[in-house]
Amino acid sequence: MLLDLTPSEVVRLLDLSYVEEVLSEQDVLEMLQAQQATRGLRTPILQSGYPGYDTSVGWMAYDDQKVRDLTQRALDSGFRAFKLKVGSDDERRDLRRAAALRESIGESGALMFDANQRWNLPVAIRMSRALAVYRPSWIEEPTHPDDVHAHAVLTREIAPIKIAAGEHIPNRVVFKNFMQASALHYVQADCTRLAGVSEFLTVSFLAKKFSLPIVPHVGDMGQLHQHLVLFNHIALGHEISFLEHIPHLRSHFVFPASVAGGSYKTPQEPGASCDLKLSSDGNH
Amino acid sequence: MLLDLTPSEVVRLLDLSYVEEVLSEQDVLEMLQAQQATRGLRTPILQSGYPGYDTSVGWMAYDDQKVRDLTQRALDSGFRAFKLKVGSDDERRDLRRAAALRESIGESGALMFDANQRWNLPVAIRMSRALAVYRPSWIEEPTHPDDVHAHAVLTREIAPIKIAAGEHIPNRVVFKNFMQASALHYVQADCTRLAGVSEFLTVSFLAKKFSLPIVPHVGDMGQLHQHLVLFNHIALGHEISFLEHIPHLRSHFVFPASVAGGSYKTPQEPGASCDLKLSSDGNH
Repeated sequence: MLLDLTPSEVVRLLDLSYVEEVLSEQDVLEMLQAQQATRGLRTPILQSGYPGYDTSVGWMAYDDQKVRDLTQRALDSGFRAFKLKVGSDDERRDLRRAAALRESIGESGALMFDANQRWNLPVAIRMSRALAVYRPSWIEEPTHPDDVHAHAVLTREIAPIKIAAGEHIPNRVVFKNFMQASALHYVQADCTRLAGVSEFLTVSFLAKKFSLPIVPHVGDMGQLHQHLVLFNHIALGHEISFLEHIPHLRSHFVFPASVAGGSYKTPQEPGASCDLKLSSDGNH
Repeated sequence: MLLDLTPSEVVRLLDLSYVEEVLSEQDVLEMLQAQQATRGLRTPILQSGYPGYDTSVGWMAYDDQKVRDLTQRALDSGFRAFKLKVGSDDERRDLRRAAALRESIGESGALMFDANQRWNLPVAIRMSRALAVYRPSWIEEPTHPDDVHAHAVLTREIAPIKIAAGEHIPNRVVFKNFMQASALHYVQADCTRLAGVSEFLTVSFLAKKFSLPIVPHVGDMGQLHQHLVLFNHIALGHEISFLEHIPHLRSHFVFPASVAGGSYKTPQEPGASCDLKLSSDGNH
């Protein structure tokens, strides 16, 4: 299990080439060693479970009533954080849906807007400012995912609104560039889009170095990331944030993630929770 | 033919999404219109031919004697610009080969070093400084091609040595970022690696906006780029630089590029010079 590895064993998992000037092997060792004495303070998360957030209430194609209904159901299930797709051709629709979601979840709930790269920089600035009134925790993928400079400009222009990005940031080098340019606040690395667990860990160490939270995008439906966020918290000292939850493929996994009361229950089975059923009929 | 299109017809070829904040349709129109009156001053290039440079003298695997022999042959053929691969495991070999090439071509010849991404940032700084004594026209692909920040740091650290990059810069957005960060001096766009001629032209307009020369990488062996550099010079007012020449696939093309006296002879056949022979035996 990843948490059982010694710091030097963890280092040997990593390819730090092209990021060494900001993250050396020695840095990684010291970061892990610095957290060892306080690990016990963070292991209660294994019992309480890692908080989730619900991505499924606000897909772009849903009409207003469906968003309200799904939000209510998610609230009843214990979720307190919700994501809404924005970037409609009709910008008024974005604002109307945002207002409705904020109304549904109340002042204490957390909401995030996800533009899925739909805006260019000028539109991103304008729409982010217009959506600020609904107090999003972040605005996600506001523009082209390769455009470090545009994200850096945007973070300055719309402060204190936060930017999340990462599901299309392809590797540790580009993540490093985003961090160096102060171009994002939430690091949505995804081990299924990066070069696997090792590169996800490298990005997690980089994020820690830049004091940024890792909030994974879950191309794996959270199956593998539910383990990785526990490592990030317990071994690396990343703050607890919340892990995206998308339940609609769960029937295909041998050990589907179990989310109850808005939190991922720590898997008790051996392995990485990634086995797919050998004969899955595709129904769910 | 591209040169026969009106400015508004050229604009309609381009996808300017995600670069509009620095290059609008109006910008493109005005850039083309500004060059129209002086086109006649630049059309003599069609008769004189566009200068080439020889990439084939200094591949990494060649021993010192072979580099000397090939360099002499290229000099005899009229070339005055030469490229040498650097980034050997043994750094002294790079320096020895560089010294030999500079000696072979004399003080007036141009040489360029190509590291093909072999260095991380600290090594790139050190080796570029060590190679500076051989007065390269540029150092090419010094480090990871996604690392805009590292290139920007490097250009400052090794000034006045110039940086060339682009054969692995994937699209107009990343090129824009390189330009915004002053992270390269020579824009080695390649229409066969970008999304075709339209995106190559978009990058050419961006480069013009940032006052940077386009010196294409030739994934097409120069077949298509020999046309595009003529457009860039005549219609867009880019300075004449030189176009990479790699002859070793020429036998496969119906109308292979013709290079004589170190210059590409302007093709007289209709089309884009990209047709491959229907039954090519692979010998060359």
